[in-house]
Parts: sequence; C-alpha cells; structure tokens
Amino acid sequence: LNAGLPEVSRNPHWNGYRCTVCSREYPRDWPHFVCESCGVDGILDAQYDYGAIGRNLDTAAPFPLSQAGGMWRFASLMPVAPASCHSAWTLGATPLHAPARLREALGLENLYLKDDTSLPSASLKDRAAAVAIAHARLLGRDRLACASTGNAAASLAVLGARAGAACTIFVPKSAPAAKLAQLALHGAKVIRVDGTYDEAFDLSVRAIAERGWYSRNCAHNPLLVEGKKTAALELFLDLAGQAPDAVFVPVGDGCIISSIGKAFRELKRLKLIDRLPKLFGVQADGAAPLARAWQAAGALAESLDGQAILALVKRAAATTVADSICVAIPRNRVKAWRNVAASGGAFMSVSDEEILAAVRMLAARAGLFAEPSGAAGLAGLLKARQQGCIEPPERIVVMVTGHGLKDPTAALAGIELPDPVRPAWPLPPGVID
Amino acid sequence: LNAGLPEVSRNPHWNGYRCTVCSREYPRDWPHFVCESCGVDGILDAQYDYGAIGRNLDTAAPFPLSQAGGMWRFASLMPVAPASCHSAWTLGATPLHAPARLREALGLENLYLKDDTSLPSASLKDRAAAVAIAHARLLGRDRLACASTGNAAASLAVLGARAGAACTIFVPKSAPAAKLAQLALHGAKVIRVDGTYDEAFDLSVRAIAERGWYSRNCAHNPLLVEGKKTAALELFLDLAGQAPDAVFVPVGDGCIISSIGKAFRELKRLKLIDRLPKLFGVQADGAAPLARAWQAAGALAESLDGQAILALVKRAAATTVADSICVAIPRNRVKAWRNVAASGGAFMSVSDEEILAAVRMLAARAGLFAEPSGAAGLAGLLKARQQGCIEPPERIVVMVTGHGLKDPTAALAGIELPDPVRPAWPLPPGVID
Repeated sequence: LNAGLPEVSRNPHWNGYRCTVCSREYPRDWPHFVCESCGVDGILDAQYDYGAIGRNLDTAAPFPLSQAGGMWRFASLMPVAPASCHSAWTLGATPLHAPARLREALGLENLYLKDDTSLPSASLKDRAAAVAIAHARLLGRDRLACASTGNAAASLAVLGARAGAACTIFVPKSAPAAKLAQLALHGAKVIRVDGTYDEAFDLSVRAIAERGWYSRNCAHNPLLVEGKKTAALELFLDLAGQAPDAVFVPVGDGCIISSIGKAFRELKRLKLIDRLPKLFGVQADGAAPLARAWQAAGALAESLDGQAILALVKRAAATTVADSICVAIPRNRVKAWRNVAASGGAFMSVSDEEILAAVRMLAARAGLFAEPSGAAGLAGLLKARQQGCIEPPERIVVMVTGHGLKDPTAALAGIELPDPVRPAWPLPPGVID
Repeated sequence: LNAGLPEVSRNPHWNGYRCTVCSREYPRDWPHFVCESCGVDGILDAQYDYGAIGRNLDTAAPFPLSQAGGMWRFASLMPVAPASCHSAWTLGATPLHAPARLREALGLENLYLKDDTSLPSASLKDRAAAVAIAHARLLGRDRLACASTGNAAASLAVLGARAGAACTIFVPKSAPAAKLAQLALHGAKVIRVDGTYDEAFDLSVRAIAERGWYSRNCAHNPLLVEGKKTAALELFLDLAGQAPDAVFVPVGDGCIISSIGKAFRELKRLKLIDRLPKLFGVQADGAAPLARAWQAAGALAESLDGQAILALVKRAAATTVADSICVAIPRNRVKAWRNVAASGGAFMSVSDEEILAAVRMLAARAGLFAEPSGAAGLAGLLKARQQGCIEPPERIVVMVTGHGLKDPTAALAGIELPDPVRPAWPLPPGVID
C-alpha cells in the first residue's frame, strides 16, 4: 500500500472479536475474518474496553475534531485511526437535513434525513472503505478485494485510487453498467462472475483466502461495521447530543443497520444517551428474508439466539428494483436481527412501487435524489406511519444511503418528458403554464 | 416563495451594477438583468464599496463562519445573505484535494483539485442557484427560470425543491436523459425546445421578461457570478490565506472563470493577497470561440475593450463530448476575457480525446469521477505543461466542476469490461492476475 499514506495506529481499547453466533472470542490479530467454528455464518463483532474508553472521554465534548479529519473524530470507538488527513479517508460529516416541505407533506414535524449521497463515491459505504484502507495499511497488505452489487465496490475503487491501493472486485454479471464503468475507470481489477451476487461473494472469499488479500466484504470483515457506525455517531452530534426516537434503514446484507444499532448501544453504554432509538430495517418485498422471518417469529423475535436466527432466516429468490438491497440471504442476519431486537424496532418490507414513490417524494419535496435502495428507508417510514407505528412528534431519522445518479433508469421510467416545442414566442397554449 | 424560508438581507455595501461592455451604471434594484443600451450582450457586473468592506474586515480572520453556514461566510463579498441555515442554500466548503498519486504522475508537486462534485446537485452551479433563490426570496418572486444544458438546471431544480420555489427550465432537445430525469423528478416544469442551447436560452429570456419571473440564467443574471465566486474564496482559505499561482477552469458561457477572476481581484483589492493567479480558460476544440479569438488577438488580447471583444469572439458550430461547455457563443465572453486578461493567463482548447483521457486520469489517480466538462480543466493543465507554460513548483488548482455520474456514457465508451467467468475456483489462468 502506498508509502505516501500517513501512519495508522490501533485503538488500544479495541480488544478483539466475539462471534455473533457462538460468542467465542478472538484476539484482534485474528487473520481469518470469521469464526473458526461457525464458518462464514460466524461473523465477528469488534469488542472494546468501554470502561477505559469511558474514563478517557470528556462527556461534555466526547468526540473532538481530530487531525485526520471527518469521521475520525470518533476514533475512540473505532479499531484503527490514521494520524493525519488524506483524501482516501478524510470523509464524513455529511448533512442532516431538516426537510421542511417533506415534514409538511407527511405531517411529521421532527423528521430528519441523513444524506450520505454526498460522500466521495456517493454512498454511505465510503465510511467502511476508509476503515478498510486504514486497516490494510496497518497490516501491510497490498491488495484489497470484495464482492459487491455496486456501492461497496465503488467505495473501494474510489478510495483505493486515492490511496494507491490495488483492488480486485467481484461483481455479478447483472450489475448496472454505470457502476461497472466507475470501477474500471478508477483502475480496479473487475472480475465479472457469471452468477448471482451470492456466487460472486463466495468466489471472492475463496480468492481472498488463497491470496492473502485484505477483505472489504461487508458481511465478512468485522471492522467495516465499525466505520459505518460513524453515520450514527454523527446523528448524535447533529441532534445536539441526543438520540432520535426511530431510525429507518434499508437492509440488504444487514451491515448498515448493525452498525447503527451498535453505535447507539455504545453511546448508551458510555452514558451519553439514556435510551436506544427504535431501528426499522426496511427490505424490498422481492428480497425480504429478514422481514419475513421477523413476522414469522412474532413475539419470540426479541429472544432468539444466533442459531435460531440462522435457522429462521431462509434464503429466497431475490428480485427488486433496489439493486443494492437485492440479496437472497443476508450475510449479516444475526448481527442485524440482534440490533433491531435490542432497539424495540422491527424488520419490514415495501414494494418496488412504494420504493419508487419514495424516490419521487424525496426528489420533489426534499431536493434529494436517492437511488431506489437509498429511498427504501423513506418508503418504510411511510408504511410504518400508515400502520400507526410512528407518532408525529417523534424524532425520526431516515438514512439516505446512495445517490440516484448511480442508477437513474428506474427513477426515470416513471417520468414522462414533455414533447419538444418550437423555439418561438408565444408558446402554444398550455406549454408554459 | 416558501414562507418557511429564513429571511434574506441585502449587503449594504453592494451598490449596484456596471455594464461589462459600455460601463454604464445601474442601481441595485435594476429589474432588467442586462444593460439597456447593449441588450443581451451587456451583461452587468455587481459593484461593491470595497473601502467600506475593507474597513469592516478583520484581516486576520476575514471570513468568519456565519449563521447561514457554508458559503455564506463570504457574505461580505456577496449581494445578499440569508439569516440562518436552510438546506436550499447551506452548501459549499467542498474539499480541496492534495492528490498525491496525480502529483506524482504529472511531476507537479503542488497540484490541487477543487472538488465541487460533492455539492447537492453534483456541480459547482449549486453555488449560483443558492444565491438566486436567496435573491428571489428577497424580491418576493415566486418562480425562477433558466435555460441550461443541464447543470445549471439541475442546481435550480434540486435547490428549488428544497426551498419550495417553483421553477421553469428550458432545455435543448439534445440534453442527456439522466439530466432531464433529475429535473422532472425534482418537480421542475421542463420545457424541451426543438433547437440548440442558444435557442432555448433566447426563449427563456423572452418568457422571463413576459412573465416577470426571476432569471437564473448564468450569463444574464449578474448575481450568479457572485455565488460562484465562493469556490475561489474557499481556495483562498484552503490555501491558508494565499492565492495559487494558476487556476485551470472549463469554459462554456464563461461565467465560472469570470467568478474566479473576480474573487481574486477582490481579495487583492482588499489587500488579502498581493498578486492574482493566472487563469487558464479551457474550452473544447469543437466549441472554442474564446480560445480561437484569444489566439487571433495575439499580443493585443490584454488591451481589447468590450466592443472589440464582442466583435472578435465569433459564433461557431459547437460539438464536443463535454456537453456542459458545448456553447456556440459564450454569453459572458466579455467578462470572461477581461478576467483572463487581467490575470496574465490565457484561453486554450483541448480535444475530446484529451478530455476523456483527463477523465480517466482523474478517476484512476485521484479517485474523482468527473463529467467530461468537469475534467476539461485537467486536460488544459496537461497541455499547458507540455507547452512549458507551467513549472513543477507552481501552486496549481484544477477546478473539478461536475460529477461523472451525470453523464457516464462517454467515459464508459472507452472502457472494456472483462468477459464473465464461471463462479468456480481456481479461476482460469490470467483472470485474477
């Protein structure tokens, strides 16, 4: 990895990992990413010494701006941190919009939109890629790899180009052309796999193990969730040191919602907030294994152990317009389920029509162009509101996770463009009014 | 305009306007946008009382953060300013990258990239739209309109949706589909004109005059340049209170380069810098009326008056892959020319191949995906370097003005994607290495 990058150091209070399924513990230099006993289902969770972190924390100003800039102000709750600014990892501090016209339309006076479309590769996943590049630098690994339907890959390619990190990216053949163009343009090695996202994922895991690469697979490398946590930690600062009442999050593999849940649990453990926001994990009807299992579990949902969650969440065919959450079996289902259960929230699903209506509503009432998966959170909120799960005074955050320009085709399909008119005044009746 | 927007106030030291061509002066409530004597060529230039501004300036910290946030910290050099934050106009503070790998590739140790692709509608033009919306609010106008090949329109539609401002946008039939989708999605009224950009522009000017709308036409409304100035004023802060030695700027109508020139001239007038950066205005070979006229003028270029510039810069057919600078006759040619001449810089042009090579270089070596026009500045720098106009130690800024996802087709055309492989290990020889 490029020698011109600033040094990276370990957080001394990052202890190691614990398996999400069997609770077995691993040291922080564990090289195999997942649990030895549980295999690819045994996704690890980074563990910290919260007692020590708490003792070092100034509760009046817990997250001071750091030398490295952006999201690294939260380095006390992250595994690694660079020593100074660099365009490969100085990012974050995205806007939290108070969208007046959307609030009015929905009758939700305390609605907020967390806008991660403005990050370097135009999705929240840059937060994970920045941690991956920093950690790979610490370990001296010279190539990073991942499988991705698009956004995780784009984040790795963009930040890899900035850092001088070589990248190999496994994509299913069906990935949208604009996303593949981005990868190749940024100099990443693209391996197109004649199969599903899941097959691309399995192939990447094998290649990473065989070659000793650094894995940037979200549901494999346990440190990526630690980078995504910063989106929620920013919410805490943006809301003047308080938690929202509810957060709506699109769910594919379940990594983003796991990171948001973990961030708020850590803030509570450090006594910076006194209750958790309800987390609503929003899937597409056509790719809803978590939402379906959650409904099936009913009253038992909050008490299931890891093995029971693995058994209950079943692989299914996946089709939805929201390609970034089109996942047949959520790799991080146990972590995601636990975090939603701990929060008092729920999984739910919405139709493609509801997702596209949310895209249009965000664009027209909040001036925010989201890709379909990026608008799924709003679609979930609309449904939860109809079902009476949300009250108007509640402080609600919708995570807007990716930009609409990444894949405008679906959003465009519903839009009728007017016929061209001759460039002469006056215009025919009706054209201008 | 939406009553929920914060109040806007006039800058008391903004005096009025002066015609760029004939120097006739106008009061600041002049309602007709352009000069009465010179017509549409007589683009006005906002005038300030720099003596008074200078007396009120703390030279040690000349641009303190303001209540309104973002680019409004430069309100002392802007005509209007809102009283508080609002997502329709709190924007700016975009990154200035120090791209290590691009510096290395080019042998330019002090090269910087000003990255305006991260703005709300993914182009620099949001800075102009924010000022337009603020000024329209001050004047009580309820509809804004413009003609645009895309980016100016997108900025108006996006920020208009945030503000609750009604927008009418005139576009040539040839505008790329993704850009039109954005406009319609954001709720703007789109009028597609069966003609060129110039015909769409003329039609918009007529409609604006007939209906009493607020004009957001860049080369018509003199206040938009005042918003774009903030990109250059940010450079001054990013470079710790110094000017760069040279700035490379893509040129279509010539508004952005005019704004950058004006910003540095104002900083010099206020004694905050002691010399102007050389401005290089980069056009595409297929749409290069300014570059051609500049070459024709030779040694006279720096002394021509407004009428002479109007006579020398001739309308020509315009074709280039860089659609945002595909302009047959630069509306703001006099202002652009004057600013380049005052700086000791030049106009130049580059081929479409050079522009696309610059897109690829930015993506692969700096992790920045620019649209073709957004990479024209870098293409110009490469050419100037070959011609010996630039020395390695100089502090050079390239303005990256719009995101590549706005129109990825051209960038993608040159990229070969690999054939899909079967999802089985080991992969065939050569696939992974």
